[in-house]
Order: sequence, then C-alpha cells, then structure tokens
Amino acid sequence: MRTLTATLCAHTLFCCSVFADEGMWLFNALPAQQLKQQHDFTVTEAWSEHLMLSSVRFNSGGSASFISSNGLVLTNHHVASDTLYKLSTPERDLASGGYYAQTLADELPAPDLELNQLVSIEDVTQRINASVTDSMSVAEASKARQAAMATIEQASKKATGLRSDVVTLYGGGRYHLYRYKRYTDVRLVWAPEAKAAFFGGDADNFEYPRYCLDVTIFRVYEDGKPAQLENFLKVNPAGAQAGDLVFVSGNPGRTQRILTTAALEYQRDHRMPRVLDLLRRKEILLQQYGLSGPEQARRGHDELFGIQNSRKAYTGMLAGLQDPSFLADKRNKEARLKSTVSDLSPWETIAEVTQARIGLQNRSGSLRSGLYRFAEELVLLATEDTKPSEKRLREFRDSNRQSLEQSLFSPAPLYDDLERLQLADELARFTETRGGNDELVQQVLAGKGPRERAAELIAGTNMFSAEARQALAKLGPAGIADSRDALIGLAKILEPEYRALREITEELDERERQAYAKITEAKFAAEGDSVYPDATFTLRLAYGLVKGYEEDGQSIPPRTTLGGAFQHEAAHQRLEDWVLPDSYEAAKDKLDLDTPLNFVCTADIIGGNSGSPVVDRQGQLVGVIFDGNIQSLTADFYHSEVQGRAVAVHIAAVLEVLDKVYNAAELKKQIGK
Amino acid sequence: MRTLTATLCAHTLFCCSVFADEGMWLFNALPAQQLKQQHDFTVTEAWSEHLMLSSVRFNSGGSASFISSNGLVLTNHHVASDTLYKLSTPERDLASGGYYAQTLADELPAPDLELNQLVSIEDVTQRINASVTDSMSVAEASKARQAAMATIEQASKKATGLRSDVVTLYGGGRYHLYRYKRYTDVRLVWAPEAKAAFFGGDADNFEYPRYCLDVTIFRVYEDGKPAQLENFLKVNPAGAQAGDLVFVSGNPGRTQRILTTAALEYQRDHRMPRVLDLLRRKEILLQQYGLSGPEQARRGHDELFGIQNSRKAYTGMLAGLQDPSFLADKRNKEARLKSTVSDLSPWETIAEVTQARIGLQNRSGSLRSGLYRFAEELVLLATEDTKPSEKRLREFRDSNRQSLEQSLFSPAPLYDDLERLQLADELARFTETRGGNDELVQQVLAGKGPRERAAELIAGTNMFSAEARQALAKLGPAGIADSRDALIGLAKILEPEYRALREITEELDERERQAYAKITEAKFAAEGDSVYPDATFTLRLAYGLVKGYEEDGQSIPPRTTLGGAFQHEAAHQRLEDWVLPDSYEAAKDKLDLDTPLNFVCTADIIGGNSGSPVVDRQGQLVGVIFDGNIQSLTADFYHSEVQGRAVAVHIAAVLEVLDKVYNAAELKKQIGK
Repeated sequence: MRTLTATLCAHTLFCCSVFADEGMWLFNALPAQQLKQQHDFTVTEAWSEHLMLSSVRFNSGGSASFISSNGLVLTNHHVASDTLYKLSTPERDLASGGYYAQTLADELPAPDLELNQLVSIEDVTQRINASVTDSMSVAEASKARQAAMATIEQASKKATGLRSDVVTLYGGGRYHLYRYKRYTDVRLVWAPEAKAAFFGGDADNFEYPRYCLDVTIFRVYEDGKPAQLENFLKVNPAGAQAGDLVFVSGNPGRTQRILTTAALEYQRDHRMPRVLDLLRRKEILLQQYGLSGPEQARRGHDELFGIQNSRKAYTGMLAGLQDPSFLADKRNKEARLKSTVSDLSPWETIAEVTQARIGLQNRSGSLRSGLYRFAEELVLLATEDTKPSEKRLREFRDSNRQSLEQSLFSPAPLYDDLERLQLADELARFTETRGGNDELVQQVLAGKGPRERAAELIAGTNMFSAEARQALAKLGPAGIADSRDALIGLAKILEPEYRALREITEELDERERQAYAKITEAKFAAEGDSVYPDATFTLRLAYGLVKGYEEDGQSIPPRTTLGGAFQHEAAHQRLEDWVLPDSYEAAKDKLDLDTPLNFVCTADIIGGNSGSPVVDRQGQLVGVIFDGNIQSLTADFYHSEVQGRAVAVHIAAVLEVLDKVYNAAELKKQIGK
Repeated sequence: MRTLTATLCAHTLFCCSVFADEGMWLFNALPAQQLKQQHDFTVTEAWSEHLMLSSVRFNSGGSASFISSNGLVLTNHHVASDTLYKLSTPERDLASGGYYAQTLADELPAPDLELNQLVSIEDVTQRINASVTDSMSVAEASKARQAAMATIEQASKKATGLRSDVVTLYGGGRYHLYRYKRYTDVRLVWAPEAKAAFFGGDADNFEYPRYCLDVTIFRVYEDGKPAQLENFLKVNPAGAQAGDLVFVSGNPGRTQRILTTAALEYQRDHRMPRVLDLLRRKEILLQQYGLSGPEQARRGHDELFGIQNSRKAYTGMLAGLQDPSFLADKRNKEARLKSTVSDLSPWETIAEVTQARIGLQNRSGSLRSGLYRFAEELVLLATEDTKPSEKRLREFRDSNRQSLEQSLFSPAPLYDDLERLQLADELARFTETRGGNDELVQQVLAGKGPRERAAELIAGTNMFSAEARQALAKLGPAGIADSRDALIGLAKILEPEYRALREITEELDERERQAYAKITEAKFAAEGDSVYPDATFTLRLAYGLVKGYEEDGQSIPPRTTLGGAFQHEAAHQRLEDWVLPDSYEAAKDKLDLDTPLNFVCTADIIGGNSGSPVVDRQGQLVGVIFDGNIQSLTADFYHSEVQGRAVAVHIAAVLEVLDKVYNAAELKKQIGK
C-alpha cells in the first residue's frame, strides 16, 4: 500500500513530458487540451474547484475526501492506522478490531491529526527569485530564498488566517503559494477490522487481483460540532465500469522523474540500497519485539506495517532502476534534451552534488527514534525561537507553529520497552555509521554499550509526558542548557553536528534546485506545456481508464467482487492473513456477492495518494485509491500503462458492507448527502 | 543455536591467555596442570584418547559423538536439519514431523553427509615453515606454504588412506596434521518433531532457561552394515548435577580472540555491520518466499532458520564489540604485550591488511546461490584439474576430492522457484556492490534486470541434475568452454574476477598469518603455555562447572525439567512457537516430569560446538551442547563466566522420551552399549 513514508523521503524533486494517461497535474494548470483530445472531456472551472475543495490531505501522509455535508471524511484504513493505533489500548485494539460510533457522542477524537483542505494556489515565483541576486553564494542564495518563502507564508497567514505553504515545483523552476484550511478536531467514526482492510496481508500487498476494504471514515468538527461543508462528493455506486474515464484527486508524495542519469545512478548504487538495508533492519527489529508477546505485537504493529510496505515498494523501485534498459532510455532522452541547450553546467552540478552526498554517507547527527526526535526538536526550538521567523529552520517558522506543536505535544501513547529497544538500535547504527572510534560516538555512548546506554537514557528522560514536553518548550536556551533530562542532554551533544550537516545538505539542495530550474526551463522550451512537476505531497489531478491488463499470458479483469473475497479466502485455505473477519462470514448470506470490491485504473499515482477519491466525469465518487500493483512500483521514475495500475476500493462495496456487515445504516444514509 | 555458519565465517584466526574455565584446548596439548589445580582432575592419555575417538565432526558444520558399539551417532536436531530437509518431500516433512526407523531397513541414507573421526594429530610446523625462505615475496610465501601443506596432506592420505588436513593454528604460529576416518554412509535413525527440538522458536533461541529436545540420532555404516565401533560413550543419566565438573569435546568453528585492536575495529565498523545487512536481507527474502504457501515455507525453512540464528548471534557479537569498555581493555592488554617486544611491525601489518580489506568491499566475483556455486566449482575444477594437486586452489586438491565430489554431486532436492528468487537477489546485490555502471555487472546482467536475467539463467541451466553436474565435471577446460549451460556461462564471465580477488585475499591472509605468528611467539614468550589457539573447526576440549547465574537480580538455576517445558508452554498460552508436539501431550501422564531436560555449564564453546558431547569425570555422556545463552555471544572475542553459559540437552531426557514419547525402547536399549 502506498502510504507516504515521509521519514524516508529525501529531497523532493520533479518533472516530465507526457504520454497517454501519464501525469500528476497541478490544479491551476490542468491538461485541458489533452483531456479533450484523448478522452473528449471538457474540464470546467466549477468542476475542478469543487473537486479541489472536496479533497483532503492528511498532513501525516495520505489523502482523503469530504463525503457529506456534515463533515464525513473518507480515507484508507492504512492512512488511519496510525490514529487507530494511538487510540488503542491493550484492552481495546481498534487497529485490529475496528470501530463504529453509533452516535456523535461515541466519535473518538484523534490525538494529533491535522487535515488540510486546499483553498487557493498563487504563483509567487517572481517574488521568490527576486530575493536572490547573482552576487550571492549558494549558501546565501539558499538562505535568501528560504527567508523570502517565510516572509510570504507569514504575511499570507496573517492576512487570511489560513495555513500558507510555499511549494517548490519543478525542483526550483516554479514557486507556488498553497493556502489550506486546517481541521484539527478530527474524530473516528468507523473503521473495519484489519482482517477486512488488509485481507491477504503482506503477501497480497502490491498484488492484484485484490479484495481489501481498505477504508475508514472520520468526521471533522468545528467549535465542537460537526463541520458544515459546502463542498463534498456525491457518490455513484454504479460507476467505475471497464473503460470508464476516472480522475484521482490526491497528494502524491514524491516522484523523481526529472532526475538526471547521474542522480538516478546515485539512487541506484547508493541511496536505495542503503534505505533498504535500513528498512530491513527495522523490520527485523520490530518482528523480534513482536515475538515477546501479543501486547508487544500490538504495540509494534503499525510501524512494522509501514516499514514492510516501504521495503516492498523500495525493492520494486530499485529493481526498476537496476534494469539497464531503463537507464539506457533515460540516457537517450537526456542526450536529446542536452542537444537543445548550450549550457550543460546544470547536469554537471547535479553530478557534483551526488558525489558530495556520497561523501556524507558516513556522517550522522541524529537518531531515528520517536522519543529522541522530541528531544531534538526541543533543543533546536530553544535556539530557533530566539531568531526572527524567516531566519529559522523551516519547520520552526511561525507559519508552521501550530502543526509543529500538535505533533510535539501529542498525547499519543509511548511505550517504555519499545522506545528503549529502538533507541539502542539507533545508538548501534550511529556507531556503525560513524565508526566506534569517532569522538562524537564516544561522547554519545559515554563509555557504555548501545543497549546499556539506551536503558540509562530512557530511565533518565521525561520525554514520555506531553506536559513535560510543553514545559521544556517554554524554557528557552538557558533553561534547555540547564536541563537534566538525559535525552535533552544527548540532543545537545548532537546539535552542532546536526546543524552542520543540515547546513551542508541545504546548500546541496539549493545547488540542485538551481540546476533543475535550468533543466526545467530547457524542458519547457523543448516540450511546451506538456510538462507537469514531480510530486511534492500537494494536491494533483491524475486521470485514466478503468482497465485490466495481461500478465504471464493471463487476462486480469479490472474489477473484483465481494464474492471474490470469499473465494480468495477459500483458495488459501484460510491460512496466514487470508482470513476474513467473523463479521463477513456472519453476513455472507445477506451480502450481494456481485458488488464490486476493488478495481484498477491507469491513473498516474504514487505513495501519498493513499485515500485519494476516484471520481467520474460528473465528479461523483466511485472509489478510493489504496495501492498500486507491483508493476507500478517504478512510478517514482516513470509511469507505465502496459501493466502498471492504481488499485482502488469501489464505493459500492463500502455502502454494501456498512449496511449489511457493520449495521451502520445510519452512517450510510449520511454519505453523499 | 550455535550452528557453524561456515559460509559467513571469514579468515580463521586465533588465541589467548587463560582465566578460570576459559579455553578450547588441543587434544595434543591439554591443560593438565590447570585441571589438576582448579578442579583436582587428572587427565590421563587413555581418558583423552577414548574421548577423542568417540567424538565426531559433521563436515557440514557441527559436532556429535558415537554412543553405541553398533554405530549410533548423537547430534543436535539443528545440525541434522539440513539432512532432514533434504530427505523431506512435500508429502513427508521429516524436518517438521520427526522420524523413527523401527528397523535397520527403515534407516534413511543421508544424501551428502560426511562424518569425521579424528584419529591422530602430528605437528608439522617445521616442515611447513621450511618451505618458505626469507627471499620470497608474500605471494610466493603463500603459494609455497599452500604447496607444502598439499604435499604433506597427499603423502599422508596415500600412506594411511585417511582424510588428512593440515590445520593452521595460532593464525600461522603452528601447523598440525589432522588425520580423520571418514564416514559417508550415514543414515537417519530418529529425530523428534521440530516443535520438541526448537520449542520456543526464534524468540527463545539464545535464551535461558530453555526446554528444547534438540537432538537427533544417526547411524554410520561400513560396507552396507552398521559400523562396529571400539570407541563410543557410555551414558550417565544421573550426571550433570549442580557443581559437577564437565567436559565438552567438539569442533568450535571460529573464534577471534587473538585479533589486534585494529582488526577488532575493522570487525566492529566494517565487516560485522555488512554481514548483518546481508543476513537481514536474506532473512526477509526467505520470509517473503515462505508467505507464498505452506510448501514454500517448508522449502525455505531450514535455510531461514540458519540465517535467523546467525543474525541473532552476530547482533550479540557486534553489541559486545560496540561496548567501549571491551576495546579499552583490549587496548591495555595489547599495550602490555607490545611492551615486551621490540618489533611492532606485526601490529602495523595487520592494520594495513584491514585497510586493504576495506578497499575490497566494493568488489565481488561470486554469487551466494546454491546453484551458482555448483557452476562456479565446475568452472574452476576444469582448470584446476590440469595442475598438479599441490598447485591447485585448496579445495580442489586430491586430499579433499572425495568431500568435494560428495557435495558437488549431491542428489539433494533443489527447487526451481527458490533458486530463481535467490539468484535474482544475488544479481541485484552484485549490482549494488559494484555499481550498475560497472562493466562486469553489465556483462552479468546482459541488458536485463536482475529478476528477468535470473529467470533466463535458471531456465537455461542443467545444474539441477546431479547427473548433469557429474557429466560437466568430466569435460575439462575445452568442454567447459564449449558448454551452453547458462550458469556455466555466467561462472565463466565471473571466473577472472573470482580468481583475481582470491589471489589478493590469499596474499592478505598470508600477511596476516605471518604477523599473527610473530604475535603468538610474543604471547608464548610472555605468558608461557597458558595459550590455546583460536577455534579452527577442529576437535577441542573445553571444561567447566554445571552452574546457574544471576540475571536482573534473579537466580537462574542450572537445570530445567520436562515438567518445566509444559509449564513454559502454559505460561505462553500455547501461542506462536510455544507449542509442544501432540506426542508430548499424549505421553504427559507417563513421563517423569522431574527428568532434567536442559542444563548450563561454564565451558568455553562457540558455533560448531553444536552437538558436542558433554561428559563427566569418568568420560560418561551426560548431555549434548546445543546453544549458548545470550550473554555468551561475545565468545568470538572473549569468554565470560559471569553470566555466559553453554546450554545442553540432558541425556536423561533423551532416554526418558525415547521410551515414553516415541515408543523407541529398542533404540534406547542400544545407547551406551
């Protein structure tokens, strides 16, 4: 499943020329001509604005849509799973067992969700670029650009009250200001059992045909009451027939289609193998933890699931990169583009930047542990807050303060044993990365082995308590310097290296941005407006046909049915994860087994699109994206329609089971109304 | 469990000064004085020769003992598991379900086992060293030494008919000629269910208290009849009481206690993190394969088990190395030893060699796939066989020919899907190691992605058939050059790089040997004869007390009982791997639940000792080593008696369950007789 694994995404890059249904289009630059030519569809401003305002971004990484006038939000179970996990206790496991709020009073507030509704887009490229002069060094240019972005964001937020983000598009070719309405009172209404949502488990993940009810429904509140929405999607349970044109409105997280061959080679030979080593390491760690008992298995499950998902996705991506024919094709296209320009320095710059990144591989100034990240943020915050907003590290600016505090002060549960295990592993990994003789490693370990040191640090921190974190955030530099909290102490040791590395990395990013901006101009010049920017976890429109495909000589039909789920279960003898929940079995006789359950289409999606609404020509909801098939895993680098498909839950199945499996007729009545 | 993971062991090194019950002693240099002083035990030649001749080495990696006059051999289930796996079919899974041969006719011949009985040891140091002169380069010295070893081995084999191996001890300080009687007709007599042998699974592995019946019984045959043995162990079911002195006679695979700090730093910062990345990669790969169905789970299980075992062991070893206090202590000792000598060049040489090894990390000329290894051996064999025996690569010498052919022509089953998966992963890893632009990588992939190329190679090879491999082995260089077999073709592409790397590595090994030989002389001079060589997968004697320990303020008793196994099962609610076999449950009422099942002692063991007999002062069998606890995992680098313990199956439990669970009274009667 295509959850955006934001923590493992690096620098966000971009962009491409278009064939067939390829493209993740900006809502302020939709491919009207192509849609008309290829699919005889006329896109109107009313149609696209309604769809934009009905679309929702889960700031934690995912997409969704408004589906009723009284605030209902439909997304994937696997986008919701982080919240389901945080709302669970050893006694009440919502992530596994599901939930249904019979009344508004039963709806459960999520501890730290932020939902974003995009309300406007403004091109601010000229204002950003005006802040950079030719005489500036790269580092100065980077800082000037960051400051200009912060100033624009802050002014916008002050003027409109809306969350305001300047988005870097085409890797630096364009800058757009996105304004969002934020919803932070988000409550859980209904979730099916994990057995229904993730039927077939890790084995079926990224496969097709699929039979998953990967959906969950929340409701947004304002002033303690269900939000009253003007824009929401109506539903069309008869839609998504084979051959239908459909649209996907969501937030693809990151693609890298603009990458030069040098950058792709860096991904293939360095970054991806390292990311996969890391993912496999964390996967084994969490598996082992889960073996200690059912409660440990529950505690680790959500993170383990995300890691397995990423590992499978990265494996597919790397396989695509390792196919020599892909890079040969890329090299040809690059040569063609280069032949249209006189200045080849952008390509040289990017090759230099990748070499610099390789040189940084054995440095590290941070630890990937939830509790440590809190400490790190608090230590950075103390200093950052002494600066004017536009001079701060991006995430500490005023315009982002609400989002930062929501995650930093989240009351979500943290588990002593799991945090200790993860910190110990991170200390070991830090030692491996920098080498055991490194002075900083010696300071960090303080004469102890990683496990012993982790135990000492966890025993000596107050970071488990949201109140303690709130108190620490108020201390300022002097207070933080005096803090006796063990993890704050550790973050202080690492702070200089963290800041040094961040400075270097941001300079490399800026050099890349400048180079890709030039390459983008070359592409615009050579290929006209058939160029969309690489994904940036902002709202995009993709489109395609509901369409099956050929695999190993077999014809794979585009849709599956509820009845097919029972057959799939029987074919796997109800072993492993091929077990439907008891509620399905109990309701089997009542269900219309011909109801479509999942379907595929050729739309161009990627991680972050999870939960995206799929709509028809009328803008009516026909499904919810939850996955791509294994042939689509190259989407980071290129879109293929031969076999690559986006996979969605059909809305008809959601309506059918709400009524007949979950006795949620009351909820069903609200949908689309 | 401490299976010798021979494929992941690197160069074999050595040696140390001794405290308390530390030591893996040579049978021709037993620590008589220490045994007398510390334990009032007088070791006689008759006692040690009987024990030596009753000890057995599984050439595939493990230890065992003769336990009857009619050829019975007792080892671990996890040492036998490779054979149990090879004897299994989808219809009859012996690895999981166990086996009992009611009659001789039912005993199942193992497809490729070689058992070795050590019959004599001879010091040949002077003859080996005489082959090397001061004027030789390192490469010449290495070749001369290899040739001298081959000549001695060949002459010995010719004169005695025995397998003759020159063993490098103290990393090059001494050379001993070991002569073995080989048993290759080895038949399976009895194995318990995996649920009994590996009760508690991966979670309990390396933990204590334990409750595993990790034993299996084979029988060696000569001329088609059970071998008649003069030397075998009698049993003492009342032995291994708390405080008893016990001895372990087995084949520890590899320790690295002589390593200099530079070499330890290389292990800590480079080799072990890489090995762990590799192990985790293979673990995930086999787990994913097993998810495709029960038959795939069966096919992958034996290898997966070995990998998980190694991963857990290496994790513990690395954690020990990462504890700064260990290396600080090592540095102090090294400084003391250095202060006794004038020539510090050996330490400098080793530091240089480690740097050279780091420089080789991005080269590779081989693939870790079972089927590819066959092809590689056949390609090398064709050329090696044109040379005189002493000039060949070590494994192709005449003295090793029988062992080589037994494994190369093994009729053990191979599975198309598993081989394709593993080859694809190895092609991907080869690409990652050398980089996708590497010329050799391009040749190997032949324009295709790793998966596609692997499918093509597997479809184009005859390597699945033992007969085809026999035919290929007869072809000679011209025939191999003409072969159309796809995997032979691949091995030919890689052969030059394989040979180049092997030449470089053997030269580094020789430089290390020369350096460690000098360091050993310094140690002998400074510390007298309290120095034993590092483990070399040859027979050693260890000793210690049956003794519990303290952990987290709790007192861990030295023995567990059959009744404890049932309690342990109940405490884990019969979940995951904490399920005893039905046969146990059925026999529960008949069993004497006070029978000791597992016990721990302070003897100094490591991987390869699996299956080693544990004997008492009278040389009578009291148990079988099968594991070390988690605190003993630092044994590669140092022995600790504070909490580190060897874990054994008590012989009383074996006798009790043979009778009452497995209805094998007939077999029980033969044991010790």
